[in-house]
Amino acid sequence: MATITYPTLMEIDFGAIKQLGDALRRNNISRPLICTDKGIIDCGIFDTVRGVVPNDVTLTVYDETPGNPTERAVKDAARLYRENDCDGVIALGGGSSIDLGKAVSLSITHEGPIDNYSAINGGRDKIGAAPPIIAMPTTAGTGSEVGGGLVIITEEGKKTVIVSPNLIPKMAICDPDLTLGLPKQLTAATGMDAMAHCIEAYLTPIINPPAAAIGLDGLERVVTYLKRAVDDGQDKEARWNMMMAASEGAMAFAKGLGAVHSMSHAVGADETLRLHHGTLNAVLLPTVLRFNADHVGDKYVRLRRAMGLAEGADIAAWIEEFNHSINLPANLGEMGVTHEMIADLSDHCMTDACHFSNPKIPTVEEYHVMFAEAIGS
Amino acid sequence: MATITYPTLMEIDFGAIKQLGDALRRNNISRPLICTDKGIIDCGIFDTVRGVVPNDVTLTVYDETPGNPTERAVKDAARLYRENDCDGVIALGGGSSIDLGKAVSLSITHEGPIDNYSAINGGRDKIGAAPPIIAMPTTAGTGSEVGGGLVIITEEGKKTVIVSPNLIPKMAICDPDLTLGLPKQLTAATGMDAMAHCIEAYLTPIINPPAAAIGLDGLERVVTYLKRAVDDGQDKEARWNMMMAASEGAMAFAKGLGAVHSMSHAVGADETLRLHHGTLNAVLLPTVLRFNADHVGDKYVRLRRAMGLAEGADIAAWIEEFNHSINLPANLGEMGVTHEMIADLSDHCMTDACHFSNPKIPTVEEYHVMFAEAIGS
Repeated sequence: MATITYPTLMEIDFGAIKQLGDALRRNNISRPLICTDKGIIDCGIFDTVRGVVPNDVTLTVYDETPGNPTERAVKDAARLYRENDCDGVIALGGGSSIDLGKAVSLSITHEGPIDNYSAINGGRDKIGAAPPIIAMPTTAGTGSEVGGGLVIITEEGKKTVIVSPNLIPKMAICDPDLTLGLPKQLTAATGMDAMAHCIEAYLTPIINPPAAAIGLDGLERVVTYLKRAVDDGQDKEARWNMMMAASEGAMAFAKGLGAVHSMSHAVGADETLRLHHGTLNAVLLPTVLRFNADHVGDKYVRLRRAMGLAEGADIAAWIEEFNHSINLPANLGEMGVTHEMIADLSDHCMTDACHFSNPKIPTVEEYHVMFAEAIGS
Repeated sequence: MATITYPTLMEIDFGAIKQLGDALRRNNISRPLICTDKGIIDCGIFDTVRGVVPNDVTLTVYDETPGNPTERAVKDAARLYRENDCDGVIALGGGSSIDLGKAVSLSITHEGPIDNYSAINGGRDKIGAAPPIIAMPTTAGTGSEVGGGLVIITEEGKKTVIVSPNLIPKMAICDPDLTLGLPKQLTAATGMDAMAHCIEAYLTPIINPPAAAIGLDGLERVVTYLKRAVDDGQDKEARWNMMMAASEGAMAFAKGLGAVHSMSHAVGADETLRLHHGTLNAVLLPTVLRFNADHVGDKYVRLRRAMGLAEGADIAAWIEEFNHSINLPANLGEMGVTHEMIADLSDHCMTDACHFSNPKIPTVEEYHVMFAEAIGS
């Protein structure tokens, strides 16, 4: 069992779900709302987790978390929370369920539209105490389990970032057993989310050497273990390392993210396309890395070292090949994004929290060019 | 300004002392006890810091922190705290003042001999809430400002480790300006404390990848900047990086320490010799690195990479040369330690908290051999 506190208490081990009862007890939670999704119910993970919940704990279940959590879904879950007089949240699933769980917690003690609490609207200073959250990731992943950030699609259709230390889960229970059955496509996509977090966080101009160091370590793990996890889901060593890398990605992005995320948030807000955040990050990384190349000093030297690439190797090209090797799309066009969407997408980027910490803050025209490149012909 | 939360809120920048007023306010401290030492008074740093204390804050000053803090000193300071109805602690100085400040805070809300709270006596579970602490390091350093650990010489003469998340300073104000005047000898000694923390933490068998990554980053900084800081105390870049490295060393040792520390605690407990913790660590590092070499898998490869050494280079020998280049002693014998002391020193090691996380836990006979080597002829 590895116990880590940066800044969340995190336990990572096969069988860690058995810590759930103690975690609930320590945080005085006896009537939790468990926020999860239908996939987690269907594949049996929910039953496994329910099996370790103590008898004196009353579980209320919200299992309708959408692929990208919406303010509407948060309201539905919060209603269930209040109706059942819940006293805490268990968030079980991928980033969507964990982010939804954080948003539910926020909404219990904070009124009004969720966009009021967006980072871009000074939300951080408005967010006070909120019910305790226990996070249990089933992907590897967003790393949302160890941080105080979340992403929600508002009722106005904007994908917005909310951040507060008061939304940091009281505990992250990271059990790689829950990922052994994660399908190849999701393994690849969520793994690339972790890679994008590590790379983008490392590249931001914000000074935070511990976060940067953690990001490079996470990056090395993803490069070493992701393809193994995709090729053989039962590879326990690979699954442990991917779970660790995912959490490290989120620890690293304490120093911010960049244009990969502003762009993937923009595309991910589209509720018709319903595209996966991790897949979008994977596909956007090469474009943004090319855009950033002249604005990062010698940081690409360190990236290559962490990734085991030769001196001067083309990192963007390597990622394109890697994406291909794990069957991710070659460009946004394959995913249904069209050139007609570029103007609106670019506008969405300009007010995204992550936009402001890209090594070079793009102009809207530069987003036009990047989207065009990422969509392909 | 770099803001870091692993797990302490840490601000590092030239001029960061100006954050003190806000830090006190945020933590509802208006009558702090400032724990410091005569050296800080004499060199003018105390006056500089007092100059940024808001007018509505009443300062009580304890300036008698010994070179290695003792339970006796803690009691004296705590009496001053109570007599002046203080409501928090500012710890200003090197590791001694910061550790003393933490011990004072502990003793305000926890009765009885301080050894009751030693980690080795199950102290962690006994330590609850304690008055808030603002830590302001003037060395680079123990990193004590960012962690929940402290070392005290008990009334029985034992140097003991106490750890609790409740003793983590509410804020670490890391202002490298306070170290510009740090004399060469202290710069060297405290810098090697940071190096020892980074190396020992990295080598423990405890699994904590973020801590390990931070340790390697800190190690690289010490190797790059310590001699520059020793040679030219006004080298601001070197001073910033040494302060960062010192904090990283303490963040890293969330995954424990090893025999360098059990041995330096043993020698440091001697109140006749009154030897400096950092100098002891520097002198003991080569011996312990040779002892550990066959018990660390391939970790020395990573150490060499972080230190910029050639493949297969002798790390212990490099450290011996480096110590010499910054005018640290060649062995414990030069510092007044004699072979007659070995038996008692070794016994002290066997119950030190750090002993248990060495890559290979030494037997008492192995300590005899290591001390003999470290003392020299």
